[in-house]
Amino acid sequence: MVFWKRFFNPDSTSSPSLGPTGAEEFPTDDSDKGRIFFTTDRDIDLYELEELCDAVGWARRPIRKVKKAVECSFLVVTMWEVRGNRRRLVGFARATSDHAFNATVWDVVIHPSLQSKGLGKALMQYIIRKLRHYDISNITLFADPQVVDFYRRLGFVLDPEGIKGMFWYPD
Amino acid sequence: MVFWKRFFNPDSTSSPSLGPTGAEEFPTDDSDKGRIFFTTDRDIDLYELEELCDAVGWARRPIRKVKKAVECSFLVVTMWEVRGNRRRLVGFARATSDHAFNATVWDVVIHPSLQSKGLGKALMQYIIRKLRHYDISNITLFADPQVVDFYRRLGFVLDPEGIKGMFWYPD
Ligand SMILES: CC(C)(COP(=O)(O)OP(=O)(O)OC[C@H]1O[C@@H](n2cnc3c(N)ncnc32)[C@H](O)[C@@H]1OP(=O)(O)O)[C@@H](O)C(=O)NCCC(=O)NCCS
Ligand SMILES: CC(C)(COP(=O)(O)OP(=O)(O)OC[C@H]1O[C@@H](n2cnc3c(N)ncnc32)[C@H](O)[C@@H]1OP(=O)(O)O)[C@@H](O)C(=O)NCCC(=O)NCCS
Repeated sequence: MVFWKRFFNPDSTSSPSLGPTGAEEFPTDDSDKGRIFFTTDRDIDLYELEELCDAVGWARRPIRKVKKAVECSFLVVTMWEVRGNRRRLVGFARATSDHAFNATVWDVVIHPSLQSKGLGKALMQYIIRKLRHYDISNITLFADPQVVDFYRRLGFVLDPEGIKGMFWYPD
Repeated sequence: MVFWKRFFNPDSTSSPSLGPTGAEEFPTDDSDKGRIFFTTDRDIDLYELEELCDAVGWARRPIRKVKKAVECSFLVVTMWEVRGNRRRLVGFARATSDHAFNATVWDVVIHPSLQSKGLGKALMQYIIRKLRHYDISNITLFADPQVVDFYRRLGFVLDPEGIKGMFWYPD
């Protein structure tokens, strides 16, 4: 079955704990670009994900660990450009969570060829909606300095009541 | 079987994915106070946990959600004061994780009657050691302003390379 049909097949739920993959189409005028879909389906070619991360200059990570991280995240959202029966991974984000109070969003990325068209915003809004659906009310993330304003526009606040993000790294 | 014996029983592993509970004793001179143990065992009376959180003034949370959060955290560490065959919950912390790259520590608490004796530090060092054992190298947390220095002494750094903790809350 071709990819986007599977999106709308109610029998297809790759992540039972999360229910149906809930694919959604991102409306676009530019028919040359193909159609854009979001989904929580985890059927991802990890080499394609690596290419996407390479395209924004992120350091390579061992595929074995990326596989584990994708499996063990609470929510994984991918964005696909679909033309005919071919699809291309153009966006990605994931969140860890305790399934109850807190979630933390990691690895938000849109392919450079599709940035600044509203896709990053739509991806984050989709994540927020999904997490709210599970009644998670404390959505957190660690923003690189150049994207703080991107998240601020989405309603994220910096250091509320003086709460500070802190990191521990091995020596 | 009494509580602290079960700690040292190699057959007792409440969290198979995390291996043995790895109980450890915190050395103390004060024999009046009983013995202090850490463990990753999740056999917790949730009402006792609520009492501990009450004791430091945290807002009450629905027990149903606390249960889910304890189950779905990657790591849960508890600290117990043991006298005879009675135990009392005196410390708690937990971490969410993608089991690969990142972990985020939540709900770090030591009972007021036992604060300032090095237990909080030992609890955090125990968590760091456990997470490092699973090869997780990016340990994060969100610190209330009055405890930023507590975490700093443990090697946590604030906003490294300008990375900022951000929060989204429902309206
Ligand atoms: C950050 C990123 C996901 C944004 O995605 P995008 O599709 O380009 O963003 P959008 O087009 O949806 O932008 C939404 C809004 O944010 C603004 N915005 C986008 N990137 C921004 C940035 N870096 N700084 C400030 N504002 C930004 C847009 O102008 C737009 O504003 P508007 O709603 O007023 O029109 C994307 O640029 C990216 O993948 N960057 C590289 C990877 C990265 O840095 N990820 C974040 C790691 S923490
Ligand atoms: C924060 C908390 C866990 C610390 O535990 P503790 O057992 O009292 O701390 P320790 O005795 O192990 O202290 C370790 C070191 O940190 C220092 N320290 C402890 N609390 C501190 C604070 N609030 N600010 C600055 N330094 C602090 C101690 O002086 C000690 O320093 P040293 O190593 O130089 O001797 C405990 O006070 C607590 O439960 N507080 C209420 C709940 C809370 O605020 N949790 C954190 C939410 S983000």
